[in-house]
Amino acid sequence: MNLSSCKYSVGVDIGGTNITVALVNMQGRIIREIKYSTDIKMEVSLFVKQLADKLAEVIMNVPVKFIMGIGIGAAGLIDHEKGSIKYSPNMYKKNVPLLDLLKTAMRKLNVNGLAELPVFLENDANVAAWGAYQLEVESRVKDLICITLGTGVGGGIIIGGEIYHGVAGCAGEIGHMTVEPDGPKCSCGNHGCLESYIGAGNIVNRAIAEIKKGKSTMLKKIAGGNLNRLTVKDIAEAAKKNDKLAKKIWDETGEYLGKTVASVINLINPEVIVFCGGVSHAGSLFLIPMKKVIVERSFVSHRKAVKYIISRLSNNLGVVGAALLVRQINDKKK
Amino acid sequence: MNLSSCKYSVGVDIGGTNITVALVNMQGRIIREIKYSTDIKMEVSLFVKQLADKLAEVIMNVPVKFIMGIGIGAAGLIDHEKGSIKYSPNMYKKNVPLLDLLKTAMRKLNVNGLAELPVFLENDANVAAWGAYQLEVESRVKDLICITLGTGVGGGIIIGGEIYHGVAGCAGEIGHMTVEPDGPKCSCGNHGCLESYIGAGNIVNRAIAEIKKGKSTMLKKIAGGNLNRLTVKDIAEAAKKNDKLAKKIWDETGEYLGKTVASVINLINPEVIVFCGGVSHAGSLFLIPMKKVIVERSFVSHRKAVKYIISRLSNNLGVVGAALLVRQINDKKK
Repeated sequence: MNLSSCKYSVGVDIGGTNITVALVNMQGRIIREIKYSTDIKMEVSLFVKQLADKLAEVIMNVPVKFIMGIGIGAAGLIDHEKGSIKYSPNMYKKNVPLLDLLKTAMRKLNVNGLAELPVFLENDANVAAWGAYQLEVESRVKDLICITLGTGVGGGIIIGGEIYHGVAGCAGEIGHMTVEPDGPKCSCGNHGCLESYIGAGNIVNRAIAEIKKGKSTMLKKIAGGNLNRLTVKDIAEAAKKNDKLAKKIWDETGEYLGKTVASVINLINPEVIVFCGGVSHAGSLFLIPMKKVIVERSFVSHRKAVKYIISRLSNNLGVVGAALLVRQINDKKK
Repeated sequence: MNLSSCKYSVGVDIGGTNITVALVNMQGRIIREIKYSTDIKMEVSLFVKQLADKLAEVIMNVPVKFIMGIGIGAAGLIDHEKGSIKYSPNMYKKNVPLLDLLKTAMRKLNVNGLAELPVFLENDANVAAWGAYQLEVESRVKDLICITLGTGVGGGIIIGGEIYHGVAGCAGEIGHMTVEPDGPKCSCGNHGCLESYIGAGNIVNRAIAEIKKGKSTMLKKIAGGNLNRLTVKDIAEAAKKNDKLAKKIWDETGEYLGKTVASVINLINPEVIVFCGGVSHAGSLFLIPMKKVIVERSFVSHRKAVKYIISRLSNNLGVVGAALLVRQINDKKK
């Protein structure tokens, strides 16, 4: 590392399954990364203590003067102005003042300069959208939508080169747009949300339901007698090997996504839609049926204008976007 | 009129049923108004000739130096940069270069100064949104969504105090978001669009279908033996008189609208939603069932943040918004 000529920021991605803490350079490259499991039952005080420890670890041996700050992306409804988590379907209590607690924990650590670093909190899909905006589209593109396909289904919106927050700071909940009004109950209370069909666990659940109907599939063998061990990755691999049931699951995944995205396209007329997150690795398995539905359900002028991108950074888009956001916030303050 | 102390602009609203041409002052007040029926079979050359005549008529005796320009709102997919109508479900051919044709017609008229006035074309829901933004919300509000409930169902989006156009210039097609994926075929080609349930004609069609099932209702008497004569206004009046069938039609109208608006709220997290157009006069008949569905289908943080307004200007919101847009475009050029 040539510390004299470059600067860094730290990105944190708090997901439903893993937490990633990374030292990122100004080009969006991860220099050092720490990943650990999310323990959704952990006390908030322990959670912030653990996070502060990881932050100290990730910047070890890098003089704090070369670090611009810390950006955190977290799943759920975030108050980015107050730095608190209002509600998260996957984790913690309601109304957690995360930044205040984290700063206290950072001060207690007594690591030289750590507690003085500015820290920002954003929704995880918003930081992913920011990462996509910085690294995955041509520089002339100023508007985009980023759809995170993981445990949950989220969305981040960039308009005019800025994160669009909405009045309460929680725009972009694409996963909780209704696809089928009479569909299954979602964790949010609504029925037939997109997430209730294509959240990672729900993709697996749809496959399990089909298997239980007695359909023949290689997934049974892959699961080795325990269907609960099945993953989205297993279903993607089986589909690539032409397993009929697995292909059907991905076709349906694309169709549910297509119904929602067609409505989003008719409403927002976006230039670029970026997909990221674990489920996005399935790529054409859902993209092809998705596009077919979009042709049926959106205006030709709208759908011809939009470009679909599967993020190269994918699972790292959030953590890198969170780090790069620090740079933008600092630039704005100048 | 004290012409020395004020300025005017001209607004035009080209709807599926009527065309309104109005001289509007800078406070958004209509000074003079001409209304005539839309003839959807009229040749484009005749249509622009007629419109040029009405423009000359509406500014009669007002020196052109006091008129800032002409703003036109038209239903359909509009290219506001080129000044052309790409597609309109209700009228004309495809790809009509409206502004070019109109300017030629204005020149031919040889009315002193008329042909020199700047003319702008916008989508009708966008100009309505602009009118709402200028006249119907508190000045601190910078983001809003305007939903036009008429022959068609449209939407205009204001973000950061500007019309949000989308990349192809045609954002806001709320009427063509899917409510029921297996619903009836819509004029746009999709199935189960919001408009296919709550466009004015489709509200009436749903009532007629119920009447034909033999349901008892005062609408039969109102129609006087010819169900095709029924209007949305008739159904609203019957509902106000507690007619069960009419109330059911409005409940369903509110429910369809609520399903779509809940998705829009979760996605955009808007501060204000303004309803305008003929159907919006039904007010609480659809607002109450709409809000009930929104409570079931949107996040509490999102729905608590939004305020619903039925436009006071309603049918005139488009023509006034189109006129006021001229002022904004002129201000920007300065």
